[in-house]
Amino acid sequence: MDNLSVEIMRLIGWALACFLVAFVCTPMVIRLLRKYKMGKSIRDADAAPIMNQLHAHKAGTPSMGGIVIWGAVLIVAGGVWLACKLSPSGPWCDWNILSRAQTYVPFGAMIAAALVGLVDDYLNVRRIGPKGGGLRVRHRLLFYTLIAAVCAVWFYAKLDWSTVHVPFVGNWDLGWWYLPFFIFVIVASQHSVNLTDGLDGLVGGTLMAAFGAYGSIAFMQGKMDIAAFCAAIIGALLAFLWHNITPAAFFMGDTGAMALGTVLGIVAMLTNQPLLLPIIGIPFVVESLSVLIQLTSKKLRHGKKVFKSSPLHHHLEASGWGEPKIVMRFWVVSMIFAVFGTLIHMIDR
Amino acid sequence: MDNLSVEIMRLIGWALACFLVAFVCTPMVIRLLRKYKMGKSIRDADAAPIMNQLHAHKAGTPSMGGIVIWGAVLIVAGGVWLACKLSPSGPWCDWNILSRAQTYVPFGAMIAAALVGLVDDYLNVRRIGPKGGGLRVRHRLLFYTLIAAVCAVWFYAKLDWSTVHVPFVGNWDLGWWYLPFFIFVIVASQHSVNLTDGLDGLVGGTLMAAFGAYGSIAFMQGKMDIAAFCAAIIGALLAFLWHNITPAAFFMGDTGAMALGTVLGIVAMLTNQPLLLPIIGIPFVVESLSVLIQLTSKKLRHGKKVFKSSPLHHHLEASGWGEPKIVMRFWVVSMIFAVFGTLIHMIDR
Repeated sequence: MDNLSVEIMRLIGWALACFLVAFVCTPMVIRLLRKYKMGKSIRDADAAPIMNQLHAHKAGTPSMGGIVIWGAVLIVAGGVWLACKLSPSGPWCDWNILSRAQTYVPFGAMIAAALVGLVDDYLNVRRIGPKGGGLRVRHRLLFYTLIAAVCAVWFYAKLDWSTVHVPFVGNWDLGWWYLPFFIFVIVASQHSVNLTDGLDGLVGGTLMAAFGAYGSIAFMQGKMDIAAFCAAIIGALLAFLWHNITPAAFFMGDTGAMALGTVLGIVAMLTNQPLLLPIIGIPFVVESLSVLIQLTSKKLRHGKKVFKSSPLHHHLEASGWGEPKIVMRFWVVSMIFAVFGTLIHMIDR
Repeated sequence: MDNLSVEIMRLIGWALACFLVAFVCTPMVIRLLRKYKMGKSIRDADAAPIMNQLHAHKAGTPSMGGIVIWGAVLIVAGGVWLACKLSPSGPWCDWNILSRAQTYVPFGAMIAAALVGLVDDYLNVRRIGPKGGGLRVRHRLLFYTLIAAVCAVWFYAKLDWSTVHVPFVGNWDLGWWYLPFFIFVIVASQHSVNLTDGLDGLVGGTLMAAFGAYGSIAFMQGKMDIAAFCAAIIGALLAFLWHNITPAAFFMGDTGAMALGTVLGIVAMLTNQPLLLPIIGIPFVVESLSVLIQLTSKKLRHGKKVFKSSPLHHHLEASGWGEPKIVMRFWVVSMIFAVFGTLIHMIDR
């Protein structure tokens, strides 16, 4: 068997292992979340009247389901890494995907963002904090930006990266501007993914497409540990999605969306293809833009709205599209653009 | 730009052209089908009580929507082929995908199966024929098997093919047994795909995954015309699926499902990977098996059923899964197995 085949088997193995761990843990996690009443509070009628009305039936569905996603990746990847550390000549080291140049950063950042999200989710559920619960907006932004900044410094100082690839043009050396650019990509990715988490199966399906695309790109670049890391996330995400498909048994919560948004942005930087992110992650971009447009319009036009509700998926809901229709169309679009982004990368090489 | 990039651009071009033609024609086709009352007759309460109850609200939704899929491919591929024939040194010939060795057979078979299906759909809608309308079962089977047989003879006699690739083992020369094997693959593919056409978006999404997988396999084998043909079908299918997502504006009908099932089987034979079809087309296989098991059980066990209703998607419906839940889970499974089948092909090379 040649080297390429071994690498593909490794991808399949990683996806399968994380899927199985997440799938086995899911019912247990759902039971625990229900028991401790980790139900999401739907935004109240005053703050978001349309949203409240459409989503009233979802009150009480447990949130924080993202735990099973990053938890499964943590258990499997962390376990293999530990086994390899304990016996460096053993077979586990062939399977290890945690390496300094490729996956320390996304792995560490995922766990960090997941923990901040977990605290935020917990405060939200328990209604501790301002405006119905959760961290203050400025604290949230501070924590997540800090995570992005640490990664940016690691890339710039430790890995000596300062160039960004522009498709069909070449590499562009940003100098120290690499740092703010990096932080912007990660923070935008985090928050856009989180905004997309608003309908059953929506963010799960679109994230699978995006990680599939970046996994393929990493594979073609020979960055096998990043590809395997993407495969691991896809496997775990699949187990989550299975129970998140409408009617959802649980939601991802900030602990899932923020963690995966962070990783997606970092993987885009690691493959040096952040400029493909607006294509591969088109649903996230569109959702984010719809919120920005809505807020700007409300500010500048004395409260006048552009959308009936924002982000876009709530506007479509308010326009009479059924929830499954929106989710399925988002899935189809994200799949097409994920393939499209991957093909651009192939042409560009 | 290197050769590979040109081929990828060609794939994107074909998918886009067929998507646009199908997308522009769709509203017109829906209007025409409604005008001439081409509504599907839901199986009546005596023949299928559970099915009838669950699907009563779908009565009147026009069928025969498959026209836009094969119609778009026919218009674009036929148009380019004609333009190339008229000026053989012109630019159109670079874009032509109809070639004797690769795509004459799937193209011709698609149109033939589409026409038989069209007649069948028409008779069904007009309630002409036995048991509520449509061709007699034995006539249907005869026509579709005939199409498969003609293709089998073409492959065996004209293209001199008689071997089948067994993954990880090698090529296996079947001799004249190639003919019945070929016919079996095509007829099984036709009917299994048709059985899967029972819920909004179900067969459309699963077919997109399957054609995506075989398109990738053909691409890796350097069979660029087959890959482009798959891309063309995916493009047209996407436009159909957009309006077929729940609540469906129209259904594919036999003219769509039989045509695409035929092509899928032939593409599997053309890439010499028919043994991957049960993996890549897993939803179709499972649906077919559920019907076979149900019928066998009813015959042998004095009417006792295994499933509440068959095919499988009706059993799941009767078990309380909502329609979108079934469709989305089928999509996810088909996508995973399409990728899995493609990876097996990559390892196997």
